[in-house]
Amino acid sequence: MLTTSQLHASLMDPVLDSLNFLNEIINRFPNAISFAPGAPNPTHLSNIDIGNYISKYVQYLREHRNLNQDQAQRLLCQYGPAQGLINDLIANALRNDKSIDVSPSAIVITVGAQEAMLITLRALFISSRYQLAVVNPCFVGILGAARLLNIDVIGIEETEAGIDLKRLEEACHIARQNNQPIRALYVAPDYSNPAGTVLTLEARQQLLDIAEQQDFYILEDNAYGFTSPLGEEIPSLKALDINKRVIFIGTFAKICLPGARVGYVIADQLVDEENGRSHLLSKDLATIKSMVTVNTSPICQALVGGMLLEYGGSISALERARSTLYQNNLTILLNALTRRLATNTSLMQAISWSQPKGGFFVRMRLPVAADMALLELSASKYGVLWTPMSSFYVNNGGTHELRLSCSYLTPPQIEEGIDRLAAFLQNITDHDIKRSNNSEKCL
Amino acid sequence: MLTTSQLHASLMDPVLDSLNFLNEIINRFPNAISFAPGAPNPTHLSNIDIGNYISKYVQYLREHRNLNQDQAQRLLCQYGPAQGLINDLIANALRNDKSIDVSPSAIVITVGAQEAMLITLRALFISSRYQLAVVNPCFVGILGAARLLNIDVIGIEETEAGIDLKRLEEACHIARQNNQPIRALYVAPDYSNPAGTVLTLEARQQLLDIAEQQDFYILEDNAYGFTSPLGEEIPSLKALDINKRVIFIGTFAKICLPGARVGYVIADQLVDEENGRSHLLSKDLATIKSMVTVNTSPICQALVGGMLLEYGGSISALERARSTLYQNNLTILLNALTRRLATNTSLMQAISWSQPKGGFFVRMRLPVAADMALLELSASKYGVLWTPMSSFYVNNGGTHELRLSCSYLTPPQIEEGIDRLAAFLQNITDHDIKRSNNSEKCL
Repeated sequence: MLTTSQLHASLMDPVLDSLNFLNEIINRFPNAISFAPGAPNPTHLSNIDIGNYISKYVQYLREHRNLNQDQAQRLLCQYGPAQGLINDLIANALRNDKSIDVSPSAIVITVGAQEAMLITLRALFISSRYQLAVVNPCFVGILGAARLLNIDVIGIEETEAGIDLKRLEEACHIARQNNQPIRALYVAPDYSNPAGTVLTLEARQQLLDIAEQQDFYILEDNAYGFTSPLGEEIPSLKALDINKRVIFIGTFAKICLPGARVGYVIADQLVDEENGRSHLLSKDLATIKSMVTVNTSPICQALVGGMLLEYGGSISALERARSTLYQNNLTILLNALTRRLATNTSLMQAISWSQPKGGFFVRMRLPVAADMALLELSASKYGVLWTPMSSFYVNNGGTHELRLSCSYLTPPQIEEGIDRLAAFLQNITDHDIKRSNNSEKCL
Repeated sequence: MLTTSQLHASLMDPVLDSLNFLNEIINRFPNAISFAPGAPNPTHLSNIDIGNYISKYVQYLREHRNLNQDQAQRLLCQYGPAQGLINDLIANALRNDKSIDVSPSAIVITVGAQEAMLITLRALFISSRYQLAVVNPCFVGILGAARLLNIDVIGIEETEAGIDLKRLEEACHIARQNNQPIRALYVAPDYSNPAGTVLTLEARQQLLDIAEQQDFYILEDNAYGFTSPLGEEIPSLKALDINKRVIFIGTFAKICLPGARVGYVIADQLVDEENGRSHLLSKDLATIKSMVTVNTSPICQALVGGMLLEYGGSISALERARSTLYQNNLTILLNALTRRLATNTSLMQAISWSQPKGGFFVRMRLPVAADMALLELSASKYGVLWTPMSSFYVNNGGTHELRLSCSYLTPPQIEEGIDRLAAFLQNITDHDIKRSNNSEKCL
């Protein structure tokens, strides 16, 4: 019998443990209305004609790669280049839609954004001294990838403007003094998961300056960029990246489908070779990828490529076709919260919540600990699920906060869910008020 | 500018460098007949009706999971469980076809065998002291995965019976004395890549005993098991594995298609938990996988599942449908070698080659170094490509050997290729004889 309690200890951490526990609770209450999942809305996943999209890409291959039908179809069934197949389509779309001007060879197509994170960390963290900084709270996928590679992580607090830049600079100084320099910062500047905050344009420019001064790289996760309200999009860090400090991670999980498992990473940095020449960092990422998954399924790439082609090769057009639903859901969620909670004076003294203009997530502060025990009460007695924010903190934090996601539900479910949440909140704040009254009496 | 010459050094090793160089040569001579690629034959990849196979699996989901058409189709488009979707189909096939009796929950579906190797190594190598033993020469994918995780590798020489078991036992003793125990042995017991050798039944049983005595795990790579001639199949190590020492890695790249990127790993070992309970190692592998690729594309799993269902859910039936072509190609290759080389007495004194009954690979020994310079000569002057065996050795070795793969070519290409190879061999052995005559004169 394997005695790998060590194994457990080496791979699990409080964040991942709590997410496992969270999933268990969610599974135990299948009839509860769940504001927990940040997954794409099921409506967008109905009637996806996989064969049709793949055919569309096969047609593109015939026209642009000088292949006949059989050769083009066979290309999808074989192994493919580690760097990817649809790099040209993505490079064109990024140039036209996002003011990101890179060559197809600077892009590596990955098995979702998760693999992009893993291979990027593996390429950058060539010394065990290096630390990874993350905006805290942060997406658990990056913590998992860092854990897998035994990379130390330091959390930099999120602020209204996105990130505490002063604290980041201090952390860089201290880390260098301790001979444990910060090699990279992970940040999702647009409607981040879980907190839903947006990095202002000014903060983006300051962050790029700091990266250059303090000599670290920025891993920009763009997963929720597409949910920006029309006309309020802020250029990505990569679009502003004069000094090639930014490695950009994109995903098609939200705008096409998660089931394809297709993401990508842009790494147009130059890497010096010993012979005096240089090559793009993307080449090293592709080599690392070949040790992880060999190559991303060409069939899945064709499916995503076909969807892109369906929208004239435009990522923005594809994004707009998806973002309306989330904008609408978010508005319904925020309105329902206001309608059900804002008129209740005693409740409003006890709780508060964010008012994001985009993204999937609303963050709510409670007067009591929003922990697993409270979630279990919420699920069992009130039939409503949410995510404790503490699950996303590197160090202790967010103990009294919860995350509500609007992405997975229908408008009627959101309305009904907020009704249930209101009843739940009324109950716990009543209890809380009683409890604090009691404790005052005890004093 | 990134100064990551260190990055390069930390990830590349002589094996991977030489394979990159090999690919460069292959790409420079597109019109040469290439015995280099071990990829599946293109014939098997024509006319794969992706949509039809996916529909077949959707139908299966409707019948066996109580889903309607829309739910079943949507299931493929969403995220899925990290452990996989088609575990039940594979568990049934392994029980019926391979005498491997494990529950679906002991299986993790991976993005090809490569990801299976990576996550298995990450789970087992929880101490940096541990060493990985590999049968030498060996498949480069396992070396890449070990390199990515900074795992030290020790090579154990291959023999006629498969592996030098005496040397393996000695290595275990020495490693333990040096406080660097061998944690696992990687072996492909059936027509291994690159050497094409087969572990006898007796050697398999001895190996299992040694694993138990010396306390290591066996990573069994089954990629070429399907090429065994009918009636000559030897039970897999996993089928003989009474003490749960074997972690079995399977792939659908060769029997279905590489483009789906679907493999799997069986890990039915019990892992002790701190609370006194235990769980299957597969659960830990799934957790690690969630940090690498989240989950294997359900669409790709459905495609492979549909192909399995097309063959009545039988892996063996699927294998037989593919193996005939490779058996035929191998016979043609071996006959052509005999016809063109065996009658040439001077050549036969200088060279020799293996006579495998299955697999993709023939190994040939030359009187001169089969290095990149010789390959370049072979490609440029004779229009024939092969793989230097030294590419597959952990330590120096195989310098005078080359690998011929029969998998990717048509019978006429094999005939023509061996004609060219014969001319090339005639030339180099003539030169070699002249050279050795000259050197004798010099003495």
